[in-house]
Amino acid sequence: MPESERLPEFRFDDRGLITAVIQDAETSEVLMVAWMNEEALARTLKSGTCHFYSRSRKRLWKKGEESGHVQTVVEVRRDCDRDTLLIRVRQTGGACHTGYESCFFERRRPDGSWETSGRKVFDPARVDGNS
Amino acid sequence: MPESERLPEFRFDDRGLITAVIQDAETSEVLMVAWMNEEALARTLKSGTCHFYSRSRKRLWKKGEESGHVQTVVEVRRDCDRDTLLIRVRQTGGACHTGYESCFFERRRPDGSWETSGRKVFDPARVDGNS
Repeated sequence: MPESERLPEFRFDDRGLITAVIQDAETSEVLMVAWMNEEALARTLKSGTCHFYSRSRKRLWKKGEESGHVQTVVEVRRDCDRDTLLIRVRQTGGACHTGYESCFFERRRPDGSWETSGRKVFDPARVDGNS
Repeated sequence: MPESERLPEFRFDDRGLITAVIQDAETSEVLMVAWMNEEALARTLKSGTCHFYSRSRKRLWKKGEESGHVQTVVEVRRDCDRDTLLIRVRQTGGACHTGYESCFFERRRPDGSWETSGRKVFDPARVDGNS
């Protein structure tokens, strides 16, 4: 990427990635965790909508590029190590490809079993793509 | 670790780690992000207080073991990929070794500069250890 877009105020790991926690700016619900390379972060900061790097698909993607469920950046925070971001957003639709508002829709019960406790906000079968 | 403590309902990465987002259960403030190996997660679930795995020190540690700033688990959630945890806690003292309530005490201004916007809750010079 061009030197002008380098981001020395963040620390990327040995894979060139930084962890990003995405939080709803209004409700403070944690929506998802994803990874950014330097280019994804530069695009996020420049465009004001979240872009990530998919480790499995090995490519940059814009959140909502297929589903329309974009995330508009409200606030960017970094942690004391500068290797993790907290991005507070305005979420269109739902963050999770399963249709839930948040990817963290499963809660552990005291006995170790799991219950679904999130809010489903769209039908994934009716959305063009999962990302 | 003993077979009885294996945790097949979570997905650990190729380094044997899972990402854990720690959120204040009362205020919903995101306090920190850390990593757990299987043993750290098993201890967290069993004891009800957060244990992590330090990638730099290559060892398991209990949050607050030196500082007393323990995190009592209120709720454990997992994401749709089962490779990230959201742990809602009751935080004693502050989560950050710098004395701030949250590790995410720096906020990016629109011009790209950074401002401190977190709440300082203890003086790190007066705390025995940073962890």
